[in-house]
Amino acid sequence: MEKELVFGHQNPDTDAIGTAIAYSYLQNKLGYDTEAVALGEPNDETAFALKKFGFEEAPRVIKTAANEVNKVMLVDHNEPQQSVSDIDKVTVTHVVDHHRIMNFNTSTPLFYLAEPVGCTSTIMYGLYKHFKVEIPENIAGIMLSAIISDTLLLKSPTTTERDKKAVQELAEIANVDYQKYGLEELKAGTNIASKSEEELIDLDAKSFDLNGKNVRVAQINVVDLPEALERKETFLKTMKDSAKSEGYDLFMLLITNVLDSDSTALVIGSDEALTSFEKAFGEVKDSEISLPGVVSRKKQVVPPLTEAFK
Amino acid sequence: MEKELVFGHQNPDTDAIGTAIAYSYLQNKLGYDTEAVALGEPNDETAFALKKFGFEEAPRVIKTAANEVNKVMLVDHNEPQQSVSDIDKVTVTHVVDHHRIMNFNTSTPLFYLAEPVGCTSTIMYGLYKHFKVEIPENIAGIMLSAIISDTLLLKSPTTTERDKKAVQELAEIANVDYQKYGLEELKAGTNIASKSEEELIDLDAKSFDLNGKNVRVAQINVVDLPEALERKETFLKTMKDSAKSEGYDLFMLLITNVLDSDSTALVIGSDEALTSFEKAFGEVKDSEISLPGVVSRKKQVVPPLTEAFK
Repeated sequence: MEKELVFGHQNPDTDAIGTAIAYSYLQNKLGYDTEAVALGEPNDETAFALKKFGFEEAPRVIKTAANEVNKVMLVDHNEPQQSVSDIDKVTVTHVVDHHRIMNFNTSTPLFYLAEPVGCTSTIMYGLYKHFKVEIPENIAGIMLSAIISDTLLLKSPTTTERDKKAVQELAEIANVDYQKYGLEELKAGTNIASKSEEELIDLDAKSFDLNGKNVRVAQINVVDLPEALERKETFLKTMKDSAKSEGYDLFMLLITNVLDSDSTALVIGSDEALTSFEKAFGEVKDSEISLPGVVSRKKQVVPPLTEAFK
Repeated sequence: MEKELVFGHQNPDTDAIGTAIAYSYLQNKLGYDTEAVALGEPNDETAFALKKFGFEEAPRVIKTAANEVNKVMLVDHNEPQQSVSDIDKVTVTHVVDHHRIMNFNTSTPLFYLAEPVGCTSTIMYGLYKHFKVEIPENIAGIMLSAIISDTLLLKSPTTTERDKKAVQELAEIANVDYQKYGLEELKAGTNIASKSEEELIDLDAKSFDLNGKNVRVAQINVVDLPEALERKETFLKTMKDSAKSEGYDLFMLLITNVLDSDSTALVIGSDEALTSFEKAFGEVKDSEISLPGVVSRKKQVVPPLTEAFK
């Protein structure tokens, strides 16, 4: 069997890394020869989760894939600009994802499973059940961590009944109290004091092609919004520099309080792009806008922006 | 529950119509409110299969969807130009398919299941099992007919072990000898004498966007290749007229002998497109090329063309 690499998106979060580990394990059990890799180093939250469940090393970081393999499997993403830089030079044989489908084109049939649930690991949990493959304790732990991360401990509006059921069952296999562990995990990802603005705006950032406009949406989790906003001017300057060098028409930084599930966004961009943004979310004052209840980029940010940019 | 329409591709074949019927039945059992419709009248083979299994009426034919519903479910296709004409005005909530993914973009997450098997009904069979929904005899019959059609009675190179298993199990539920019934079904679709060249080149035709070129690939099934080729000059003229009026850069008519699984293709197009075609399949003489063993548009025609048009 020809070796394939399994990976999640750039700027990996706990779902991208955790589900890649889980899918690689499952596919190897089913007879494939795969290795879970990552398109970046784990963030603080993911590192916390990996350590908690006994993974001594994070998946190997790759910059390109075609130098190693002909075939790859994607989890937690499908849009080419979120994937490995040479994605056009390899064949995608499998995708498991929970996002919209955009600019994902293949020349041959493939396995593609997307479901509109809160986390790719919830779909992965269903695949383990379907193939009747037993989930080891550490894999259950990292999948649980992925769902806690993506759903903000089941409080995000993306959360479905299936996510809740998966969390309960995976917590049992992983032998943890998911409420207690979940808060610890989320808090592990909120330590922004030790990081520069450059790091923070790139930590969990994704690019979207919205009707030809290059839109960057970054998100950071905090437990103290006012503390984060003390760094507003430096954030804005850093975002402007990044937009200039990378060619973003709009840069949005979503700062989310993981304890009360509210966000404030910092936004910069061209006049035209800002007009579209305001069509979706209302007036931006001093490059800032309060977004009560907004915590999900996928469900609460990208769809209204997509509409507004049409 | 808001009503949704379920349909397969334009110029529907037995898989497009049969799997739409099967998916609508399944989704209604699961609590959705759906109706199976079609983007065209059934061909002779599909009409034969529908009659055989007691469907008194074929699914209603629609030209547009947005005048009736906001949401749709697609089977056996995903490429917009193969779908309903106003596909951009409705939301696709579910896709079950076995083709490559191309130009299929959504603004929100959805359910998407693609598997590289011979027929969408084989995937559908798996979904019935997954959801533990019993398959009625007539639905089993039309799903069986779809797999026989797409795999040319399990002889196409697209055929997988799962298609074979599904055929055996569905034949049992439908209470037919699939070898005997399969030959009857395939032969029912080979009566080309009663049809005009205009009808024949449109019966099972699909358009593909290959690197900006508009490529039309039609296929007809016969039991007597020389008899079909007696009409070659009229076929070519009709194909040229169609290419001119519809703006096809290339028009390929694959004439497949369903008994011995060989094809001859008639090909017309611009010099540039024909050069690409010959890169994929070799020299075209007098607009004709013999393609021994080629029976699958999806697996044996579109991938080499896609490569050649790069």
